[in-house]
Amino acid sequence: MTDVTYSYAKRTNGMKASVIREILKVSSRPDVISFAGGLPSPQSFPLKEFERAAQDALRIDGTRALQYAVTEGHAGLKKYLCGWLSKQGIEAPPEQMLFTNGSQQALDLLGKIFINPGDKILMEDPTYLGAIQSFNAYQANYITVKMDEDGMLPEELEKRLKANRFRFAYVVPTFHNPAGSTMSLERRKAFLRLAKKYRLLIIEDDPYSFLRFKGTPIPSLYSLAKGKGVVYLSTFSKLLSPGIRLGYALAEKDIIKHLIYAKQAADLQANTLIQYAVYHYCQRGYLEKHVPAIIKDYKHRAGVMLDAIKEYFPPEVHCVEPQGGMFVWCIMPRKVKASDVFQKAIRKNVAFVEGSVFFANGGGENTMRLNFTSSSDRDIERGIKILGQVISSFL
Amino acid sequence: MTDVTYSYAKRTNGMKASVIREILKVSSRPDVISFAGGLPSPQSFPLKEFERAAQDALRIDGTRALQYAVTEGHAGLKKYLCGWLSKQGIEAPPEQMLFTNGSQQALDLLGKIFINPGDKILMEDPTYLGAIQSFNAYQANYITVKMDEDGMLPEELEKRLKANRFRFAYVVPTFHNPAGSTMSLERRKAFLRLAKKYRLLIIEDDPYSFLRFKGTPIPSLYSLAKGKGVVYLSTFSKLLSPGIRLGYALAEKDIIKHLIYAKQAADLQANTLIQYAVYHYCQRGYLEKHVPAIIKDYKHRAGVMLDAIKEYFPPEVHCVEPQGGMFVWCIMPRKVKASDVFQKAIRKNVAFVEGSVFFANGGGENTMRLNFTSSSDRDIERGIKILGQVISSFL
Repeated sequence: MTDVTYSYAKRTNGMKASVIREILKVSSRPDVISFAGGLPSPQSFPLKEFERAAQDALRIDGTRALQYAVTEGHAGLKKYLCGWLSKQGIEAPPEQMLFTNGSQQALDLLGKIFINPGDKILMEDPTYLGAIQSFNAYQANYITVKMDEDGMLPEELEKRLKANRFRFAYVVPTFHNPAGSTMSLERRKAFLRLAKKYRLLIIEDDPYSFLRFKGTPIPSLYSLAKGKGVVYLSTFSKLLSPGIRLGYALAEKDIIKHLIYAKQAADLQANTLIQYAVYHYCQRGYLEKHVPAIIKDYKHRAGVMLDAIKEYFPPEVHCVEPQGGMFVWCIMPRKVKASDVFQKAIRKNVAFVEGSVFFANGGGENTMRLNFTSSSDRDIERGIKILGQVISSFL
Repeated sequence: MTDVTYSYAKRTNGMKASVIREILKVSSRPDVISFAGGLPSPQSFPLKEFERAAQDALRIDGTRALQYAVTEGHAGLKKYLCGWLSKQGIEAPPEQMLFTNGSQQALDLLGKIFINPGDKILMEDPTYLGAIQSFNAYQANYITVKMDEDGMLPEELEKRLKANRFRFAYVVPTFHNPAGSTMSLERRKAFLRLAKKYRLLIIEDDPYSFLRFKGTPIPSLYSLAKGKGVVYLSTFSKLLSPGIRLGYALAEKDIIKHLIYAKQAADLQANTLIQYAVYHYCQRGYLEKHVPAIIKDYKHRAGVMLDAIKEYFPPEVHCVEPQGGMFVWCIMPRKVKASDVFQKAIRKNVAFVEGSVFFANGGGENTMRLNFTSSSDRDIERGIKILGQVISSFL
């Protein structure tokens, strides 16, 4: 009798544990000040309101809230959400919306329906790690475009478009994770012109734009393109709770149709109870009331971190001042390795994410991402002071 | 200016809308008696108890119940569930368990980590449609083994194993969906012997075995193999609610590790709030109390359907009497096409699923699957009477 042997598919070679999720385990020790996660402030979670909403779902909708439901999603919630988005300048009819388990699942399903092994994907450099992980599972190749604080560099972008045929571009135009930057209106328009010229499909990942605490809103790529050739992704993770895993995609009907096929095969449908509860949460007006409170909170925390950085970081470190979102991106002098800084900082109980993990094709060894939404004022100040000392020790 | 064009990946050729989910839309009209779905009885949903459990989660666990959480899953719930499974004869430590969005997502993730395009998968004939859909997305090929009421025919099974190299076998040994059959203990042991001989990995999908209303329990393949070379899938969908989308996989550690990578890339983690709520639901003893009530309900409904079949179906139709689960499988004389029966029946407001959709490589045109868990006694009787008349009209 021999033991059963099994072998994995080729695509699993591209899979590994998320660096960030592994860091989260280290940094979840209570004595660690962690700037590592992308955790929304727990103080921002509407516990009582969501309890009421869940109660509504189970009392008003009854057994429907616990039953299987159509993959297309809760019609009332889609209608509400489309109305809410419309107020933010994003116009889409409910039939062009699909609920997903956070935006992360939308990335996975888009990878599934679009990417053949070896296909080229245009990516910002750096970019969201979760997107790299999703697309890796479909054996994508990445061609990257460098960014400044206004987004991708236009000349490099066009050079890449001329030289390559892309399956799609993946971008985070507003309050970029990790780079903290926001693509300017001019760059957005230029990007869309190039996309038309080169027939490039764009995936716009937009989890943060509703969390602007400074500056003037800039229209989404989706709005500017009137929905043509742009798939728009967003989520309730940062406006309500990430633990409820409710995101959504807006796209042309044919793409939504294929996403529905893929979603059915992947897990049938989004969570019924959660959809009903979020519907009642919205109907009660809680969402409209809640978002300004989060913005106020995040504005405060970002201010505390930026002030501490000014006081404690050596002037050689350049940090991008965010106008919203959850992160400060720091670029250290080339000779300083973030991995060295991390090793020394974690011994002093301060954690962050090394920026290099966000570069699809390597690089960024001297960068780091700091999250300001899940630490207290005091911890932000203490942590930044320690980090400043550690960085200085390498200069 | 030209419009953006996009093309889908090759694997999307294998994707289409789930026939069953499309039928569900037709048959969800209130005037239709539907035996089509796989919907658990809504009367079995513990509305008040789950409201209490969700309240516990939000009051006792507070913001943790709404935050991101580790992909590995809620430690307390895993511990409870492993204890509960142990009482059912299924032994696994919590680190060999992963939560998924229903069993459906486990099928998707297993397809993702194991299947290269063109790989052969051994399937029962017929088999669960959702598995075909999941594996189609990874461009699997199916080699099928015919079944009788004791499971796969042993001679055909060994012939297939001799002639092919399989990535894995996918089976539903207990209260088969759609075939209603249960693999006998003897066949299970023989199957495991062959699996060892041919080094075959087995995926055992077991959503129904806890819903036995007749006969003696038979150990799972997973138990008989002591977890070696068998991945075991089950779910809360049929014991609590399918709308909460909580299933789980048990597997050897290395497979769990790869499933975790895939889950992180697919949607980061299972729903935090739901995991906490189900934990409290279980802690309060509700699960232990609730399962016998469902079994009693399903035993009754199955009896009503089988009695009606005896009275109203022509004797030429052979129906498999289930000992548990949710379905009666009917085999009509070869000359009767279930598609013709469906067309005529739906005009009389009775729906079911044509059996042919469950055959991975075609066939079964004279078969149909009847669900007995989501219709009232009166509707079961009326619907079966109408179906009997329709079938008779084709004889």
